[in-house]
Amino acid sequence: MPEPRGGRPAPRPGPRAAAGAPVASPWQPGGREAQRALKRDAVLRTAAQLFNEKGYAASTLEEVAERLGVSKPTVYYYVDSKDAILYECVKTGLEMLQQAVREVDAAGGSAYQKLLAAMHAYVDIVTQDFGMCVIRVGEDPLPPAARQKLRRMKAGLDHEFRELIRQGIAEGSIADCDPKLAAFTLAGALSWIGRWYDPGGALDPAGIAAACIGVLTRGLAAPPAPAATGRRRAAR
Amino acid sequence: MPEPRGGRPAPRPGPRAAAGAPVASPWQPGGREAQRALKRDAVLRTAAQLFNEKGYAASTLEEVAERLGVSKPTVYYYVDSKDAILYECVKTGLEMLQQAVREVDAAGGSAYQKLLAAMHAYVDIVTQDFGMCVIRVGEDPLPPAARQKLRRMKAGLDHEFRELIRQGIAEGSIADCDPKLAAFTLAGALSWIGRWYDPGGALDPAGIAAACIGVLTRGLAAPPAPAATGRRRAAR
Repeated sequence: MPEPRGGRPAPRPGPRAAAGAPVASPWQPGGREAQRALKRDAVLRTAAQLFNEKGYAASTLEEVAERLGVSKPTVYYYVDSKDAILYECVKTGLEMLQQAVREVDAAGGSAYQKLLAAMHAYVDIVTQDFGMCVIRVGEDPLPPAARQKLRRMKAGLDHEFRELIRQGIAEGSIADCDPKLAAFTLAGALSWIGRWYDPGGALDPAGIAAACIGVLTRGLAAPPAPAATGRRRAAR
Repeated sequence: MPEPRGGRPAPRPGPRAAAGAPVASPWQPGGREAQRALKRDAVLRTAAQLFNEKGYAASTLEEVAERLGVSKPTVYYYVDSKDAILYECVKTGLEMLQQAVREVDAAGGSAYQKLLAAMHAYVDIVTQDFGMCVIRVGEDPLPPAARQKLRRMKAGLDHEFRELIRQGIAEGSIADCDPKLAAFTLAGALSWIGRWYDPGGALDPAGIAAACIGVLTRGLAAPPAPAATGRRRAAR
């Protein structure tokens, strides 16, 4: 996995990192600001992997430190608490999703095309560490104020999907449906992937996305046979 | 809500109980066996409601006792531990889902019709206390042996959905797709309902099921205009 280097802080969340991919411990000399950002990112990403694997309650900062080969006080130099880590992990995952929706919107096309692109980006993100953490752990274990902020971000994302569906119905590119419940249906189907996806498994995120989005866009019901109005009907 | 009465133990899980509906405290005289079954069911159902509302970690048996107007030792007379309660709640929810799939299969029809009926039953169950507990809490907090048993039940259910899809593709009633990933897509979309469904909200389970299953069966993409081969095409 290429890692950002040089004098500037590493962009969070950085390039696509397959969920569970080993985080290179960045405790080596380098530009101070960049090193700090890299190290903080490594702490957060390692914690996200741990939460996703073992659940939030069973995860400890000792184990985060162990995986990175540093001491617990070193970890505390970059983050305040386990709650603060979870908040940052979920926030980062949600920001990745927000960013993807913004990019899709900027790229133009019909609302249906935008929705398709947003769905593919969604799967790509929920199969990465921070996005997976949004789905597997989420904001539930956090104190009310933090929970509230993250829920607002989630509601905003849900609103974006709903809006795309509403626009698609209006312009005729999306089938007539209840935009709110259709958005929930998409969110459920796509989020579920973040729960069962196994980074070491045989299925890759792009293949999963194609199959899942195929069902969501074309539906499970077999299309009517193309010759139904012609000879085949007469043959019944 | 009608409650089973008389000399026989109450059938678990009993008639459809809207999630979060107050559980009548059954601490009154009556047939001994039936009373015991009713009381145990009340403990489990009240616990499931509490887990669904507050999360498993934040729930206590004191609060279960309080809600039922009994003492904590009385609750312990019916169940061994919080873990044992969660196990029973999730197992009951999964048994309801298994039972629904069996009934659907017995009712006959095309694989697509069976799948439709199973999906409607699924939504009906994940919007009730025990089914919602399967989705919101699940087996994750339990010790390995219990977790393993419940996971096997879940895998069996997933297999049933996959099998119906496979049969539907073979007989032509279901569109060509990857049965495993299509089953995951359904499971995700339908299970998600158990996470956001608000028993006191404006949307009823039947309406939610119709909208969600509509998207899953017909797809989001607008169908091609019926007159596309006739005048409308000529008008472009």
